Amino acid sequence: MGLPISLHDIRAAADRLAGVAHKTPVLTSRLADERAGAQLFFKCENLQRVGAFKFRGAYNALAQFTPEQRRGGVIAFSSGNHAQAIALAARLLGMPSVLVMPGDAPPGKLAATRAYQQGQRGSEVVLYDRWREDREAIGKRIAAERGMTLIPPFDHPHVMAGQGTAALELLQETGSLDALLVCVGGGGLISGCAVAALGLQPGIAVYGVEPAAGNDVQQSVARGEIVRIDVPDTIADGAQTQAPGKLTFEVIRQCVRGMLTVSDVQLIETMRFFAEHMKLVVEPTGCLAAAAALERVVDLRGQRVGVILSGGNVDRVRYGHWLAGDPA
Amino acid sequence: MGLPISLHDIRAAADRLAGVAHKTPVLTSRLADERAGAQLFFKCENLQRVGAFKFRGAYNALAQFTPEQRRGGVIAFSSGNHAQAIALAARLLGMPSVLVMPGDAPPGKLAATRAYQQGQRGSEVVLYDRWREDREAIGKRIAAERGMTLIPPFDHPHVMAGQGTAALELLQETGSLDALLVCVGGGGLISGCAVAALGLQPGIAVYGVEPAAGNDVQQSVARGEIVRIDVPDTIADGAQTQAPGKLTFEVIRQCVRGMLTVSDVQLIETMRFFAEHMKLVVEPTGCLAAAAALERVVDLRGQRVGVILSGGNVDRVRYGHWLAGDPA
Repeated sequence: MGLPISLHDIRAAADRLAGVAHKTPVLTSRLADERAGAQLFFKCENLQRVGAFKFRGAYNALAQFTPEQRRGGVIAFSSGNHAQAIALAARLLGMPSVLVMPGDAPPGKLAATRAYQQGQRGSEVVLYDRWREDREAIGKRIAAERGMTLIPPFDHPHVMAGQGTAALELLQETGSLDALLVCVGGGGLISGCAVAALGLQPGIAVYGVEPAAGNDVQQSVARGEIVRIDVPDTIADGAQTQAPGKLTFEVIRQCVRGMLTVSDVQLIETMRFFAEHMKLVVEPTGCLAAAAALERVVDLRGQRVGVILSGGNVDRVRYGHWLAGDPA
Repeated sequence: MGLPISLHDIRAAADRLAGVAHKTPVLTSRLADERAGAQLFFKCENLQRVGAFKFRGAYNALAQFTPEQRRGGVIAFSSGNHAQAIALAARLLGMPSVLVMPGDAPPGKLAATRAYQQGQRGSEVVLYDRWREDREAIGKRIAAERGMTLIPPFDHPHVMAGQGTAALELLQETGSLDALLVCVGGGGLISGCAVAALGLQPGIAVYGVEPAAGNDVQQSVARGEIVRIDVPDTIADGAQTQAPGKLTFEVIRQCVRGMLTVSDVQLIETMRFFAEHMKLVVEPTGCLAAAAALERVVDLRGQRVGVILSGGNVDRVRYGHWLAGDPA
């Protein structure tokens, strides 16, 4: 089976994102290199708009709407970074957005999403009861009534191609790399990044990193088919997906050298490393790839390695307790 | 009286630092702009080597040593960012460094300084008893015995010119600015930055920001002569200086439009803002300039404003408690 996206799609996404998404910095650290025994290049998507790479895919998808789709606007289900990314991209493109979010989502996330929608006619957050209502039914009804287009968080070629621009920018800045480490939730980021990286540098080894408690993609790759797991118990809330998407799994199966896992304890250690030594706030999910390198989960000795820090959206108080060493 | 440094000196420092210091990113935030009512450009010296702008001045000074001075090496008194900056610059230039530090300095700072000295023959940290010994006498004795050159933390033209490269880079990236906000401890950073900024853009308004509890420079400017205060009680430990230097005061007196102050509470609010919304760890001293903008201590409405974030070296546990909202 051919791949659902190509390097050409990612280059086209990069053109759409030029001047709209931040070209995030690539940072290095002597101490990180010592710990990893490798030369690490951190692509700081925690410094991206909305605090995560998700803005890339959302904007790339919405920018390709037909005039009719634009009039209707976009609808998405998400309580996380995808919601804010869709809300901001819709606002920038002047279209309405509806975000279907659980009523018990963190107040900060609701407020942030509404702030991005402010002043955009026809935009709103629709709350549902996680225990009693079916968000898909709600979404389908609103989409039909209002003529809105649903954009899923990862299993969509335009979303995947948009996410791939993170690796494109990274490799354009660093030149030749031996390996690339990417965190994996539903697989949108790694599928885009793998196609970009292999397109530019066919010999590069791309590794995906999941929380040990939520290794649905590792299991799926081992089994050769999509495996669905229970909602995993991990602090990496962006990687609590239960299964990869059809499209993302196909890319991962064909393009990714290996799937790795790290523990929550290793994620907390890595968050502390970034705060203390690199002055960066990185959310637990955003630490997955870096943790695999810093904790030497895979042998990278002597290599030049790209590491994507996917986001920095973490509750301030909880994060403060993690840094201070108090119980989470 | 003429100024002790010129734009030419700062350009020469930039040449020495090219490829050695990080060209730190300039970040922006829609939310920060809304709060300030201005367009803010944050120069992220917290992402500089050793976690603070101090590396610029230290390296620029040591790079101008004569061959004989290089053989002898450098000595400095500091328990803060200057110590680490001197240790790293000396190592990069292949010369010994002696840092005279109080025996009760935070263990993390001692360890970091020693780590930078590792493998550099003749380098060491010399501890002294703050209550019973005179560090200047210790320093002078060692300097004489070993033929070492003392580099002070701020009151030195080469140090000041090095620090000015932060503003040079900022203005080269942003183009025309209406104002520049800089934190003030001993005045090394602001004196270099003011000369750079006014040299490039003569109409720019440069403001210095001190902790309210430690406004020795504000008092000195008001009095027209150097005023010495007690060691100020503030969390901004990099601005606990008791008086500006002779050279730095001369530049501040002539080039700085106004001296502002912010409270420790405002610094904590600003640290939280950076962690939550910009994913950056900024130390209390590093928040001084930003706090003045975000808390509208001075009227910047509608202006394009450069803001220097001077450093990110803060005890992780204490910082965690500040973020979590626990008592400091």
